[in-house]
Amino acid sequence: MTTPAAEPARGVFVSFEGGDGAGKSTQVRLLGEWLAARGREAVLTREPGGTELGRTLRDAVLHGEHVDARTEALLYATDRAHHVASLVRPALERGAVVVTDRYLDSSVAYQGTGRELGADEVERLSLWATGGLLPDVTVLLDLDPDVGRARLTGSPDRLESAGDDFHHRTRRAFLARAAADPARWLVLDATRPADELAHAVRERLAPLLDADAGRGAP
Amino acid sequence: MTTPAAEPARGVFVSFEGGDGAGKSTQVRLLGEWLAARGREAVLTREPGGTELGRTLRDAVLHGEHVDARTEALLYATDRAHHVASLVRPALERGAVVVTDRYLDSSVAYQGTGRELGADEVERLSLWATGGLLPDVTVLLDLDPDVGRARLTGSPDRLESAGDDFHHRTRRAFLARAAADPARWLVLDATRPADELAHAVRERLAPLLDADAGRGAP
Repeated sequence: MTTPAAEPARGVFVSFEGGDGAGKSTQVRLLGEWLAARGREAVLTREPGGTELGRTLRDAVLHGEHVDARTEALLYATDRAHHVASLVRPALERGAVVVTDRYLDSSVAYQGTGRELGADEVERLSLWATGGLLPDVTVLLDLDPDVGRARLTGSPDRLESAGDDFHHRTRRAFLARAAADPARWLVLDATRPADELAHAVRERLAPLLDADAGRGAP
Repeated sequence: MTTPAAEPARGVFVSFEGGDGAGKSTQVRLLGEWLAARGREAVLTREPGGTELGRTLRDAVLHGEHVDARTEALLYATDRAHHVASLVRPALERGAVVVTDRYLDSSVAYQGTGRELGADEVERLSLWATGGLLPDVTVLLDLDPDVGRARLTGSPDRLESAGDDFHHRTRRAFLARAAADPARWLVLDATRPADELAHAVRERLAPLLDADAGRGAP
């Protein structure tokens, strides 16, 4: 399957990755507030379920009838294709900063490494689905799964209730992907205070935002 | 994207293809009745929407918000993956004859040729989704789209309401696929009477069913 090159985009695309309970939604919110205070349009979104169709698919995969590994990977790829085409790309094209709670790396880590499909196959599928769009920066909030799960409240969905070994393998998959592409990834210890983490994220993004503002200027 | 070889199956897998109004559902029903009279288990199904999840996806793609070509192809591939894993393969493994109203060739003809994605890409995606499962026999009920549309009643869905040129290109795509693989395809003139068409289908299937009965015997 060929993957077309991503079109040039004027905005900045940031994803947060990590296990459940690592504090992704808090950091997405803090980053959004900081961007708004700087006068930048910030589009805060998530996968799965960043669109109406995506919410239908998320409910189908997390709470519906049992699906096999290929169907599950395809459901996430479908959600991602629609999310990118209908929300992420249009926002980047008008110069916004798009901040997403999970993106392609979650599929590769969870479906590719954690279950029976190969990581390369799942990544190729997602790259095809998105037309090759990768984030400018991916922040990994790294946390021991045992610590993360103790932070969670409410009833577990299908992924949350998978075995401990699954979550430890997923953590190692995230760390390996980050180590292989340090230009894209920022790995942070998620046990640090939220404001320290937010500061580290802002430091990493600031030069990109300045460069981007320069690019976007008339 | 690699496609694993299909596992050996004891049953027989038959698909009906062709434009809207060609008489596919009538022929699926007649074939099911004939198989039942011969004492064979016949599983009559359809794509999209042969499963509960598939019906959710079909509604999303045909009647929901606008989706781009990749998302549409992925929705059909997801439906197909689940249909094969949860219904078609289990039925074939217990020796049934599975008869489906549309399968992979519809995606290749409609999404691959008719719209902006390449036919090869759409076919690779579907083959990955199904683990490489192709029908033993595919019956093409070939019909001039103008004749087929005059037969239709009710309000058109998204595909039915696409332009005339789209349906003519789709017809040519079906015919080209059939010509390239005559061992799998049976092309019939859909303007012939339904009982004549049913007879032609039975003649083509009879040797396969006998061979299959021999394979399945203790």
